[in-house]
Amino acid sequence: MRVVIVGAGFGGLEAARTLARARRAAVEVTLVDRQNHHLFQPLLYQVATAALSPGDIAWPVRSIFRRRRNVTVIMAEVTGVDAKARQVRTREGLVIPYDALVLATGTTHSYFGHDGWAKVAPGLKTIEEATEIRRRLLLAFERAEIAADPIEQRRLLTFVVVGGGPTGVEMAGAMVELARHTLRREFRRIDPAAMTRVVLIEAGPRLLPAFPEALSDYAHRALVRMGAQVLTGTRVTGCDAGGVRCGDRRIAAGTIVWAAGIEATAAGAWVEAERDRAGRVKVAPDLSVPGHPEIFAIGDLAAATDAEGRPVPGIAPAAKQMGRYVGRLLAARARARGAAAGAPRVRASAFAYRHQGDLATIGRRSAVVALGKVRLTGLIGWWFWGIAHIWYLIGFRSRVVVSFEWLWSYLTFQRGARLITRPAPPSRQAPPAPERG
Amino acid sequence: MRVVIVGAGFGGLEAARTLARARRAAVEVTLVDRQNHHLFQPLLYQVATAALSPGDIAWPVRSIFRRRRNVTVIMAEVTGVDAKARQVRTREGLVIPYDALVLATGTTHSYFGHDGWAKVAPGLKTIEEATEIRRRLLLAFERAEIAADPIEQRRLLTFVVVGGGPTGVEMAGAMVELARHTLRREFRRIDPAAMTRVVLIEAGPRLLPAFPEALSDYAHRALVRMGAQVLTGTRVTGCDAGGVRCGDRRIAAGTIVWAAGIEATAAGAWVEAERDRAGRVKVAPDLSVPGHPEIFAIGDLAAATDAEGRPVPGIAPAAKQMGRYVGRLLAARARARGAAAGAPRVRASAFAYRHQGDLATIGRRSAVVALGKVRLTGLIGWWFWGIAHIWYLIGFRSRVVVSFEWLWSYLTFQRGARLITRPAPPSRQAPPAPERG
Repeated sequence: MRVVIVGAGFGGLEAARTLARARRAAVEVTLVDRQNHHLFQPLLYQVATAALSPGDIAWPVRSIFRRRRNVTVIMAEVTGVDAKARQVRTREGLVIPYDALVLATGTTHSYFGHDGWAKVAPGLKTIEEATEIRRRLLLAFERAEIAADPIEQRRLLTFVVVGGGPTGVEMAGAMVELARHTLRREFRRIDPAAMTRVVLIEAGPRLLPAFPEALSDYAHRALVRMGAQVLTGTRVTGCDAGGVRCGDRRIAAGTIVWAAGIEATAAGAWVEAERDRAGRVKVAPDLSVPGHPEIFAIGDLAAATDAEGRPVPGIAPAAKQMGRYVGRLLAARARARGAAAGAPRVRASAFAYRHQGDLATIGRRSAVVALGKVRLTGLIGWWFWGIAHIWYLIGFRSRVVVSFEWLWSYLTFQRGARLITRPAPPSRQAPPAPERG
Repeated sequence: MRVVIVGAGFGGLEAARTLARARRAAVEVTLVDRQNHHLFQPLLYQVATAALSPGDIAWPVRSIFRRRRNVTVIMAEVTGVDAKARQVRTREGLVIPYDALVLATGTTHSYFGHDGWAKVAPGLKTIEEATEIRRRLLLAFERAEIAADPIEQRRLLTFVVVGGGPTGVEMAGAMVELARHTLRREFRRIDPAAMTRVVLIEAGPRLLPAFPEALSDYAHRALVRMGAQVLTGTRVTGCDAGGVRCGDRRIAAGTIVWAAGIEATAAGAWVEAERDRAGRVKVAPDLSVPGHPEIFAIGDLAAATDAEGRPVPGIAPAAKQMGRYVGRLLAARARARGAAAGAPRVRASAFAYRHQGDLATIGRRSAVVALGKVRLTGLIGWWFWGIAHIWYLIGFRSRVVVSFEWLWSYLTFQRGARLITRPAPPSRQAPPAPERG
């Protein structure tokens, strides 16, 4: 049975791994992604704040499946699905046939219709976005150091994060630490610790809306204690190169990071299916696309519900559970095929999401963890958060490198990846002819 | 005394460090660079071949001088020097006055007049160039995997390195290892180990022309034994997107790396001075610009000679020696200033270059080292090469990380930074509407 999986994020990777390991199932897996690497998105904010290098949290997909001869990895950009002919098409002109198709392309940023904001307020979903945010952050301090106008200096040293979910909270906390610890004594004309202003803006009534309220409050207080400014119940109505607008209020800022909205990637439109407001595919209880029992949507792309009818959150553990579920389901089908013609159709039990918990870190020795009824905060929450993330990295090398980076950062307050790299190689052209005195 | 140093490479950094440490010398140092980081160029080829991350070999300049209150670091691009007014001008509009000026901006690539080749044959001097080369290398294999035409496949899997100095030799060796070891079993339609062709082209009669002939021969044989193709006495006469031309001969290649020529950066034109064919400033015995006793040129930018009249090579140890020399000279002047008005002018002894040796690595357990009369090759040369490079990195963290990366790579044949990252964030736009079957 030929299974094509589009997307090598948490969901797609888990589906591929499950199928690769399936016993007595004749499955050929083709895993297609337009990137060559799997990205550990939960730690992307650390690349954006210069604490980790991209290579620490990303791994080439084909390397992960090197030993699995029944898994073929292709780097290509899928542009459409021909459900009748059972083929997937790519921008490179490939046509990939399938017996079963798993769509796992995830979500991208939503600017709530204001796509023009994307340029001034990048999100945090890819390595390129993370290094671009890093560039803007570090450049802001460099520019402030040589700025003649104190108002411009103040604007450059104001950083806005839009969105109070885990991504926004973690970014805001890390940005405060960057200014107050790492860059503390490194400038002569500006004082990053005293002059930096990090503003976290959340439209809803509280930060971390998916977390228990007590933990939301803890995170809010922790951020304020660290020196960030937190605005809840505040909606951003405008973003431009000079700052943001929230209704009547204007905040002049040099850097804006967008962590406020997501919408499904285009894959949601590749198959005829009902979608929710964010474009996610409303899947059947077995995660298949209604009307297409051989096409599945998993991870952030899918609008699935748990046993109580609540929506399954768009988090990594959920994507992995869905990937594993679909992997097992397809493996069972493959076995049934191999068993006997006319054998009864495999009836799978519905996907049952099991919420394990929520984690978010705010800063040094300060994180919030909710595991079922267990609540952890502060230093113990922070250790738990750290260990959990290292556990889920891929490969021995990354675990060692990230553990070392974190330990070193913790002891020295330094950050190991403080590079400003331009998006394109710098111009080789000679500067204009010098003026003679 | 106000000293302005332009360029934070090996020369500029060493000059700044020497002045920062100078005792009883009232010196204010301003170190200006258009990048925010100091780059350990000798290991850049390892970023280009996905073995190291950029953050492992680059450090923010201001971090290096954090504790030196008499050193101010500015990220700006100098565009000219007003020698009369004793000021340096930058693109950002800054005007920086100096009592003494040290130009240490180094060299850039020379395409021998064919600047159009730069786009298809990038060089290896900056992080952006290294990650661009990395992208092209890894992408070549990905494209070859899905290529329908075997001739195109062969072209994609042909890699040309132009220039047989240490950079070219190290790149070629690493590229062979990438194909033959790291990527060995990771593809299904292509066999990187068998199908990859790495061609190293050198215009002169032998590789590593600055090395003793016996070591050049060793390197040549080692590369051939590894599976590379080495063409000496061959000049590249054309470069385009399809490959290179050497006179009548055409080599179809998907990736070209330029390591063949250097020319001085524009700084050579900022002061009126005689320059050599490569644009480097012909400096006086004390490394000052003739006619301008308060302006110095050091490192690759300077055309200096040693005690025997031979040109000082454009290598890192030479730049550091020059930086240290100028640092001491200026510190002595500062002390003399402070001593008494009318005190005799400081007469410095001429700069005396002391050649310590040459190192180049070819691959696993294979390097060439020439230290005075001592010659090392093979495994022992390789260990020496590794330890020497780790020794000269900056900071505990980098030494630990690079040592670990090398050890892990050596044991597993893997490479830790195999990411294809695009120069700009990928398009968020939805692909064209899917075709219906």
